[in-house]
Amino acid sequence: MNTAFPTSSLLRLLLTAATALAATIPIHADEGMWLYNQPPHDILRQRHTFEASADWLEHLQKSSVRFMSGGSGSFVSEDGLVLSNHHVGADAIQKLSTQERDLLRDGFHAGSLAEELPCKDLELNVLMEIEDVTARVNAAVPATLAPEQAATARRGVLAEIEQESVQKTGMRSDVVTLFQGGAYHLYRYKRYTDVRLVFAPEQQIAFFGGDPDNFEYPRFCLDIAFFRAYEDGKPAKTPHFLRWSTAGSQESDLVFVSGHPGRTSRLLTVSELEYLRDRSYPEMLERLNRAEVNLQAWSGRSAENARRAKDELFGVQNSRKARIGGLAGLQDPAFFGRIVAAENAFRARLSGSPELEAARDAYQRIAEAQQRMGEQAIRYRMLEAAWGLHSELFSIARTLLRAGEEYPKASRDRLREFRDSNRTSLELRLFSTQPIHADLETVLLTDSLTFLTTRLGASDPLLLSVLAGKSPRARAAELIGSTKVGDVATRRRLYEGGATAVVSAADPMIELARTVDAEARALRKLMEEQDEVKQQAHAAIAKARFALQGSGTYPDATFTLRLTFGTVKSYAEDGQNIPAFTDLAGLYARSEAQNAQTPFDLPQRWIKRKSRLALDTPFNFVSTVDIIGGNSGSPVVNRAGEFVGIIFDGNLSSLVLDFAFDDVQARAVSVDSRGILEALRKVYDARAMVDELTGRRGIRR
Amino acid sequence: MNTAFPTSSLLRLLLTAATALAATIPIHADEGMWLYNQPPHDILRQRHTFEASADWLEHLQKSSVRFMSGGSGSFVSEDGLVLSNHHVGADAIQKLSTQERDLLRDGFHAGSLAEELPCKDLELNVLMEIEDVTARVNAAVPATLAPEQAATARRGVLAEIEQESVQKTGMRSDVVTLFQGGAYHLYRYKRYTDVRLVFAPEQQIAFFGGDPDNFEYPRFCLDIAFFRAYEDGKPAKTPHFLRWSTAGSQESDLVFVSGHPGRTSRLLTVSELEYLRDRSYPEMLERLNRAEVNLQAWSGRSAENARRAKDELFGVQNSRKARIGGLAGLQDPAFFGRIVAAENAFRARLSGSPELEAARDAYQRIAEAQQRMGEQAIRYRMLEAAWGLHSELFSIARTLLRAGEEYPKASRDRLREFRDSNRTSLELRLFSTQPIHADLETVLLTDSLTFLTTRLGASDPLLLSVLAGKSPRARAAELIGSTKVGDVATRRRLYEGGATAVVSAADPMIELARTVDAEARALRKLMEEQDEVKQQAHAAIAKARFALQGSGTYPDATFTLRLTFGTVKSYAEDGQNIPAFTDLAGLYARSEAQNAQTPFDLPQRWIKRKSRLALDTPFNFVSTVDIIGGNSGSPVVNRAGEFVGIIFDGNLSSLVLDFAFDDVQARAVSVDSRGILEALRKVYDARAMVDELTGRRGIRR
Repeated sequence: MNTAFPTSSLLRLLLTAATALAATIPIHADEGMWLYNQPPHDILRQRHTFEASADWLEHLQKSSVRFMSGGSGSFVSEDGLVLSNHHVGADAIQKLSTQERDLLRDGFHAGSLAEELPCKDLELNVLMEIEDVTARVNAAVPATLAPEQAATARRGVLAEIEQESVQKTGMRSDVVTLFQGGAYHLYRYKRYTDVRLVFAPEQQIAFFGGDPDNFEYPRFCLDIAFFRAYEDGKPAKTPHFLRWSTAGSQESDLVFVSGHPGRTSRLLTVSELEYLRDRSYPEMLERLNRAEVNLQAWSGRSAENARRAKDELFGVQNSRKARIGGLAGLQDPAFFGRIVAAENAFRARLSGSPELEAARDAYQRIAEAQQRMGEQAIRYRMLEAAWGLHSELFSIARTLLRAGEEYPKASRDRLREFRDSNRTSLELRLFSTQPIHADLETVLLTDSLTFLTTRLGASDPLLLSVLAGKSPRARAAELIGSTKVGDVATRRRLYEGGATAVVSAADPMIELARTVDAEARALRKLMEEQDEVKQQAHAAIAKARFALQGSGTYPDATFTLRLTFGTVKSYAEDGQNIPAFTDLAGLYARSEAQNAQTPFDLPQRWIKRKSRLALDTPFNFVSTVDIIGGNSGSPVVNRAGEFVGIIFDGNLSSLVLDFAFDDVQARAVSVDSRGILEALRKVYDARAMVDELTGRRGIRR
Repeated sequence: MNTAFPTSSLLRLLLTAATALAATIPIHADEGMWLYNQPPHDILRQRHTFEASADWLEHLQKSSVRFMSGGSGSFVSEDGLVLSNHHVGADAIQKLSTQERDLLRDGFHAGSLAEELPCKDLELNVLMEIEDVTARVNAAVPATLAPEQAATARRGVLAEIEQESVQKTGMRSDVVTLFQGGAYHLYRYKRYTDVRLVFAPEQQIAFFGGDPDNFEYPRFCLDIAFFRAYEDGKPAKTPHFLRWSTAGSQESDLVFVSGHPGRTSRLLTVSELEYLRDRSYPEMLERLNRAEVNLQAWSGRSAENARRAKDELFGVQNSRKARIGGLAGLQDPAFFGRIVAAENAFRARLSGSPELEAARDAYQRIAEAQQRMGEQAIRYRMLEAAWGLHSELFSIARTLLRAGEEYPKASRDRLREFRDSNRTSLELRLFSTQPIHADLETVLLTDSLTFLTTRLGASDPLLLSVLAGKSPRARAAELIGSTKVGDVATRRRLYEGGATAVVSAADPMIELARTVDAEARALRKLMEEQDEVKQQAHAAIAKARFALQGSGTYPDATFTLRLTFGTVKSYAEDGQNIPAFTDLAGLYARSEAQNAQTPFDLPQRWIKRKSRLALDTPFNFVSTVDIIGGNSGSPVVNRAGEFVGIIFDGNLSSLVLDFAFDDVQARAVSVDSRGILEALRKVYDARAMVDELTGRRGIRR
């Protein structure tokens, strides 16, 4: 699906499930990805005697940064300095790299403001305001409408609200669907599009242990990168920024994380989870496995190939591990059985009022909609989600084709990504000067056309049009070799010239996009209609849930800002105690134990400067905070709101957090504020940056 | 399918296709994997003015060796010295390695006979006699029998013929199904089960370039390993052995290859090929991709993990590349279109006699049988082919379970692998003392139980029995941790104790095998019945083909000895000429161009001794000989029958040879006899071995 799964009210069921587990896990688990406008005041007071004041919340909120490329970060100086993970910034760093100057491999450190490198297409957002628009959205979608009309009406009112807000405030404005349709909130963001790279360590140390250690613990990674937000060509003034704690945190400390969890599935019904378990996850894994093998094989052919594919390969491996972990949870009869039991218990309570009874058959409606979506899922994924046409150039070509067709319509009637309120973001990406490598594109498109052939069937009429009588390999080479959309000036000309210019360009890649577009759009429409059916059903379930349990809870993750909390805490695994903290000595020990073989080799700089370092400096640590993909780069702060670390991973046990909270073994993994300072000072000689972070002086001009 | 696909007469169709391509490829392509008892005398005379005398043929036949682990080789001294590829011997070398003494990584060189290392379970076969038993087999399977009875009757008569032969001659005796049922030949082999490792280079140089360079050219690999066959504790006397050519071969030379191509699909009908294209290959690739990712990820965790998984990982990567190449051919509309056109042309000729007309509806019967097999294919693969239960310990457990049930039956009524004539081979493998690593086993079984859950469905009753209420991970750990079949003495006791001992052992892995056995056997029976239907239909097509075209042709590959020939020949790729030979200088140049990064790094020995080497010595070369997987290790000989090289790979273009011959770009890749000698002399100081190879003196005693 291209939008978040509209889902609903398993939440309280999962709380029930957690209670049922009271014998083995603490009853007062630090669960929740909380909305900033509905923070868990009572829980924080009762469990942690902590008072989250309005000022404290506002400061943390406005210090938090969303990376539109998919991650989180925070301001760490008043001059727009942003800290995120290296792996969140890797896409941007990769786009700044060339064969001669490999910034991913070698790292980067701007000696002065003038040396800071403007990123190609990086957009940062800071959440400034939230407005509840639930009533207006619901009023625009009367219950009498058929799914198709309802979906159109809903898309329309969302576009309208957003565009009004943009016109009024000039800010990025997104309506966020919460509780799978139980609520709609309008989020207004300050947007930064002039973002520059300030500092990145070598990927070797940022991602020490590589794919083998990913989602594992203990860890030893300096997974950080610094960027700076600019306005009007100058460093942005950011009065809300996190003060750096040189004391860090200790075992048992309460910590908070403010970030952008991407998506969870805790409120899905059992029928939806079964679909994930039996169809979605296996199909995603099949795609990820083939992509990983393809990219690995190609990367192995030369160092330059490896450099070109590195960032994409990392993303694939990361997703693969996450999906394997999630699937392991869904396939665990005990884990899944608890979810089923909880849903059954909740459904048994749905009687006694019209509101509760309305929720009863919602489950069936969801199951039926899921079934209908499942029937079209393969073609949808292959054509609209472009699994079968995987190439950056195809993606650009499709955007040009559709821009020409969509923009002449009223904003509310367009495909959602073409709404006026998204135009700045879309153009930033479309006109990016990121390098596109024809050889890698050909390899990716060859493999995905092969996949397409298998999934659609070799004699499928649409497939035959796509291949135009050629083999996947030959067709991919022809398309990549002849399209002109790799050229930014051409893109701009076609975009500005609209449909007429696009038609007369007769670009083979755009014409390929046109070939599949009728069916791709039809499939998307069908999916959106069924999404609408599910959304209405989930809204009914949500209502019943609020009626039974009150509304003091949190919705599934939606890649919007959330507050979560937990404690720094060791755990037990296979009978062994895993301490909460690692230190720099452990880094060197791990490298040595692996004979310093890739990916356990250290950068020269780290080898040479070992003797300078205080080796007992804490490096990475774990806590029970409730996180998921998208939280990467989130700041970890203490009660005083000071920066004590940065989230960069979860352990293997944390991968089921997609479906239910756990704090027995599941842990979030962070880089420690002390380890970062020690490395900046003694390995990278980054004194000016240390001074800026610790507030000793402002940035150098 | 567990047996070779019974297939038939596309051959002449493909010859037609080749003729249709006359504009681009030579009409007199050196096609064919010829039977030793039906050699292509006329073609050799006409095209190459070569007379293959009976003595010449017998000598080459009896110098050729089959590795039952899956590959080919040859005798290269009168004292039982056998040369094969390192990658053919890797399985045996791996089984001789330990964490402390990694022979795959470091290589091995026996300084004397006493130091030669006995392999754990390696069986070598030398083809001694061929007897045509077609008439007897056909007489035992009257046309009136239903498929189930026919399959039983056929299995019965094959077991009977083999067992009679074993009793009469004491030799390994296999009836080989040729032309998909057009002919049955009894092959008698001399069998060697005391085989010792003599010499292996470092895997680094044997497999220089690793997976990235696999199936590529130019190449620079010393892919060789020497073993010695023993009889009665002494080196076997092998009067038929290949003399070593110190002159090697030259561009345009006629060369012969004598080896054991595993399987080709050139005689399959279009309906069968469509099945391969649309189902088999994609499913195999899905399995290979997941296995590769799983093994890579686990290998990355430590050097010892990597060592344990190395051989299995290589096998997976090798198969993956081969399948991708094959699928690329099948998905190429031009290539597949030629096959379809050829079949249509042939079918159009099937009228005018009862024999020809009988062949006409055979195509439909094959398509229907294929359809029925396809309906059960997923469960068959998961349960009987054990894709869903992938573990060495499971395989042993199943063998013990079935041995207890099968051996009390008459040989002809047993599952084929339990026939008396196969008993020695089965026991050699069952009682192998190869190391089995519980950690790797758990990783493999976890992944395959996950795959099983997806394919059978999480609520499938058999799956629920298999998992016993646990997650795939927990169940795998429990099974691997508690089974006793890893112990060879236990295996022997249960095997000898029969079903009663097996039942009372109550071993959890054996009980798991029992859980799936009823359905696994039923699925196998169904497949064998449909195989029988296809076999009869293919026999009808074969008869029609012989009637129309005569019988002077060759059958699809069956992992039995074949003679093939071709010329040493450069080729063009992407407009570039690729010379036929590489040399040692090229090896060093390639390593340097890749910054000596793994897998392009050289063993220390090769770096140190570079200056000693004559760098213009030919190292690898290509020829047009018609080979496929299983030919690895096959000797390449000149007109005089002298050893000039050893096959170790084909280039990417050769991967379609599965379906049709090509000599435009398809090439077989060999190690040159001169490069081998140079390396043995100057890098490995293996003077005694050089003397033995060049006949200067016998082996040292």
